[in-house]
Amino acid sequence: MRLTVYLAGEIHSSWREEVKQKAAMLKLPIDFVGPMEDHDRSDNIGEEILGKQPDAIFKDAAASSFNNLRTEILLKKADVVIALFGDKYKQWNTAMDASAAVASGKPLILIRSEANHHALKELSRKASATVESVDQAVNALYYIFE
Amino acid sequence: MRLTVYLAGEIHSSWREEVKQKAAMLKLPIDFVGPMEDHDRSDNIGEEILGKQPDAIFKDAAASSFNNLRTEILLKKADVVIALFGDKYKQWNTAMDASAAVASGKPLILIRSEANHHALKELSRKASATVESVDQAVNALYYIFE
Amino acid sequence: MRLTVYLAGEIHSSWREEVKQKAAMLKLPIDFVGPMEDHDRSDNIGEEILGKQPDAIFKDAAASSFNNLRTEILLKKADVVIALFGDKYKQWNTAMDASAAVASGKPLILIRSEANHHALKELSRKASATVESVDQAVNALYYIFE
Amino acid sequence: MRLTVYLAGEIHSSWREEVKQKAAMLKLPIDFVGPMEDHDRSDNIGEEILGKQPDAIFKDAAASSFNNLRTEILLKKADVVIALFGDKYKQWNTAMDASAAVASGKPLILIRSEANHHALKELSRKASATVESVDQAVNALYYIFE
Amino acid sequence: MRLTVYLAGEIHSSWREEVKQKAAMLKLPIDFVGPMEDHDRSDNIGEEILGKQPDAIFKDAAASSFNNLRTEILLKKADVVIALFGDKYKQWNTAMDASAAVASGKPLILIRSEANHHALKELSRKASATVESVDQAVNALYYIFE
Amino acid sequence: MRLTVYLAGEIHSSWREEVKQKAAMLKLPIDFVGPMEDHDRSDNIGEEILGKQPDAIFKDAAASSFNNLRTEILLKKADVVIALFGDKYKQWNTAMDASAAVASGKPLILIRSEANHHALKELSRKASATVESVDQAVNALYYIFE
Amino acid sequence: MRLTVYLAGEIHSSWREEVKQKAAMLKLPIDFVGPMEDHDRSDNIGEEILGKQPDAIFKDAAASSFNNLRTEILLKKADVVIALFGDKYKQWNTAMDASAAVASGKPLILIRSEANHHALKELSRKASATVESVDQAVNALYYIFE
Amino acid sequence: MRLTVYLAGEIHSSWREEVKQKAAMLKLPIDFVGPMEDHDRSDNIGEEILGKQPDAIFKDAAASSFNNLRTEILLKKADVVIALFGDKYKQWNTAMDASAAVASGKPLILIRSEANHHALKELSRKASATVESVDQAVNALYYIFE
Repeated sequence: MRLTVYLAGEIHSSWREEVKQKAAMLKLPIDFVGPMEDHDRSDNIGEEILGKQPDAIFKDAAASSFNNLRTEILLKKADVVIALFGDKYKQWNTAMDASAAVASGKPLILIRSEANHHALKELSRKASATVESVDQAVNALYYIFE
Repeated sequence: MRLTVYLAGEIHSSWREEVKQKAAMLKLPIDFVGPMEDHDRSDNIGEEILGKQPDAIFKDAAASSFNNLRTEILLKKADVVIALFGDKYKQWNTAMDASAAVASGKPLILIRSEANHHALKELSRKASATVESVDQAVNALYYIFE
Repeated sequence: MRLTVYLAGEIHSSWREEVKQKAAMLKLPIDFVGPMEDHDRSDNIGEEILGKQPDAIFKDAAASSFNNLRTEILLKKADVVIALFGDKYKQWNTAMDASAAVASGKPLILIRSEANHHALKELSRKASATVESVDQAVNALYYIFE
Repeated sequence: MRLTVYLAGEIHSSWREEVKQKAAMLKLPIDFVGPMEDHDRSDNIGEEILGKQPDAIFKDAAASSFNNLRTEILLKKADVVIALFGDKYKQWNTAMDASAAVASGKPLILIRSEANHHALKELSRKASATVESVDQAVNALYYIFE
Repeated sequence: MRLTVYLAGEIHSSWREEVKQKAAMLKLPIDFVGPMEDHDRSDNIGEEILGKQPDAIFKDAAASSFNNLRTEILLKKADVVIALFGDKYKQWNTAMDASAAVASGKPLILIRSEANHHALKELSRKASATVESVDQAVNALYYIFE
Repeated sequence: MRLTVYLAGEIHSSWREEVKQKAAMLKLPIDFVGPMEDHDRSDNIGEEILGKQPDAIFKDAAASSFNNLRTEILLKKADVVIALFGDKYKQWNTAMDASAAVASGKPLILIRSEANHHALKELSRKASATVESVDQAVNALYYIFE
Repeated sequence: MRLTVYLAGEIHSSWREEVKQKAAMLKLPIDFVGPMEDHDRSDNIGEEILGKQPDAIFKDAAASSFNNLRTEILLKKADVVIALFGDKYKQWNTAMDASAAVASGKPLILIRSEANHHALKELSRKASATVESVDQAVNALYYIFE
Repeated sequence: MRLTVYLAGEIHSSWREEVKQKAAMLKLPIDFVGPMEDHDRSDNIGEEILGKQPDAIFKDAAASSFNNLRTEILLKKADVVIALFGDKYKQWNTAMDASAAVASGKPLILIRSEANHHALKELSRKASATVESVDQAVNALYYIFE
């Protein structure tokens, strides 16, 4: 049995690499997918495919359509979603992906530091499990295969 | 034909009253529902029902269960969801409710100022319609009944 | 038992009035809903709500979001969809609404003249019933209540 | 991860070959499926399987049942649908397949020239992404695998 | 609480009247719906709406589309389906309606005489309850409201 | 807005009356439904409708079909399920109804004493909210309408 | 692309072998599944697994549970269902399987001789395609892979 | 065709080994999955991943989230669920998993001794098949592949 895990969350740190390395060390049969991690590529993908847009709002509208296309397809392939909330940025896409996972019946593992526990209390209650670190999330994945 | 509209978003300003008044002036046959708007009540509901909890995290866990219960039931009754993002706070519950609406096939009207257009570009593309003010959202509701 | 019937199709003739009058004469307990029939209002609704857009394409994008919002809500309320194809115009919205009805399990009554039978043969096979005139469609509605 | 992509749209030009060649050059792990591209075979399949029919309408009814059978099965296998609208023909099957994709939760990439932007504005807003050329559609597919 | 009950089964005896009278005597708050009970009307409805068809098979095809339209709408409104199998006729529509009820999650009460118990054993196991007479079926309805 | 609440759980104490009285005192617009509370009637309903059965197992099989019929219909009507676990009996029907509610997307309020917290920990985590007394459950219902 | 095809229908002739041989000659990548074809095994499976039952009705009830278990699992694996109606027997299981296929969104190919066209007219209209012989059904399968 | 079978039920005896050995002897192409069978690991997994919790209830809450995560994923992968009820323990998780299987459309094989037939009569009626021993359950699996 292989699982596909979607890694939702900020793309400014290397937490996805950490998850993948730890899962690899534990030999977990998991394929990881996730959003475009190259921030500029993600912001510019609309103009890169469609050409120059009238202004910043329309540039964003164009980019968002390709980012959503990517996310919808990969999220649908996932058996589990891990969503990590960090201490910076608005992270509304993370909240959006996490909630979409729950609403479409996919188990969600939420990673959030204690600093965010209050603001995320409702999402945490909807998650299958809430942890505080990448290590704990990987241990949760490990438990599935035991 | 009556519609039920869920008003997701921050509970620190009186924007819900504004929506309701304008809808009333236009005689729109709409029942509005939404989250608990009394902020303290929302934060304390866990302890108010279950009694004192061990610490702040468990107090939040308890509160979130009753807030989720409320939201799930009312969101399920809604024909449309309006989600307003303001300039302050993390507003992850707003993102969560908006995304849950989309994922369960309910039309979403997103209200966000230009300041937030970049951070909300993916959610905006998933919304049925995105506007910048309460007035515009009410006009969108009006258009449904024309 | 009352039914809600969505009338999809071109908005350049008065066929919806004809349906409604005939249903009224037969005293059928039906509420009819449908797309915005004022063609200019439908084309301009984006700019009317959001203000002037950069160009014709973006004006259309804005208008379409409010038209889709309206259609999604009303289509979801419908028990049956009647889709009329005339001899003029591309009528892609009619095809889109008819197909959305079928794909979401709503019975479809297709009205099309013999001139269109070839181009609509696949949609006709998916419809619950295909007729050639408004009269026949109303008779089909009548049969449900007999 | 392999994806299956259904190519909806007119069968009078070789645009599907173009998509396949470009995807092959980019080594995208994609299986392409689509409607019967031999126009005569598609029109005659009813009589070829069932024998001579009473008249042209019944010949079409027979053909459409086998075309729908084929499309239903292949569309259900697809992870993404690309729908191309050209400048000729009614293309109601293209609109029907595109709308069925959206209504059953499958991401849609719409290809349409600027000439059709007005008539397709509502469908475009429902698509995950809208582009103007085959090249742009293939780039959108490429972005999913990046 | 009112329930809607669809009465599937043969239209050659007056068993539906018996159900309705007994339910009325027990004052059960039930709305009964069902197929067209006028056998000729049901067989001829295609030609009555669409006009003369080429032959008997096409006459049947036309009739079936309006019968299916009616059944789909009424079955979807039903909270429970009662299917009665008699000793005569093929009764494939009864089997079809009963199985459609089960497959779409609607509780089924099956009425069949002992003579048919063997041929209906698989359907009986899928029914919520199987009884042998109209009286017993009405008692089952009564039990719901106790 | 009225809600329908299904009261799952043992039928040997008067806890349902307590819920109803407290809800009535708070003027909550709620319709309560639930399983047959007359224990003998529930056990004998199979033989009462179908007549004497061969042995105890078949008597039970007959009874269960009518109990399931009743529960399926009433559970489907419910917006929320309250499941109370007491200290006696196996209460597998309570667990079954509670789990069916969760699996079909209905919010669940679980009432269980501390004595049962360990054995019910997994169900509790799936419930929207878990409380320890009837009073607390009614307060949770009250919070929905605030 | 491989397909799984469920062959519903009578088990007294060798029509399934005919389908399989013709599909093999055409090298169609299809896995065929279907009901237990050994008639005695199917009738006795309840007692073979559970032991002697009180009487013929209970023997049938026991058998049907294992036959349903088998059918549910295999039908769920199928991409397409072919249902053949012959001239003998009640064939209610065939009608039940065919209707379950349609109700759960699986394309249905109906095989029936002209003798049965009238009694099967409603099911025929719900099928994706109706043919008169095994040869025609295999040709329909072939068309999917062209 | 391979099947995945989830083995729900108590983890204090070696019945799962018995099922697996018998299935292996019959060369059934089945992958078996199930809950964590190491009882201490299952009870302590919350603290093992998240660290020491405030008290026994919170320890249980933490453990249950990881147990549910595991069960949800594995249950979703399953084609069939076998639930065994023994003579000891409350076995509410068994009832919960069995009911979740039924409610989400997965066939259920129930194993229970005669001692439990009364308390499980409603669940038994919802199961696809009910047997009294592991041997009989394996024979039921065997019948699927015949």
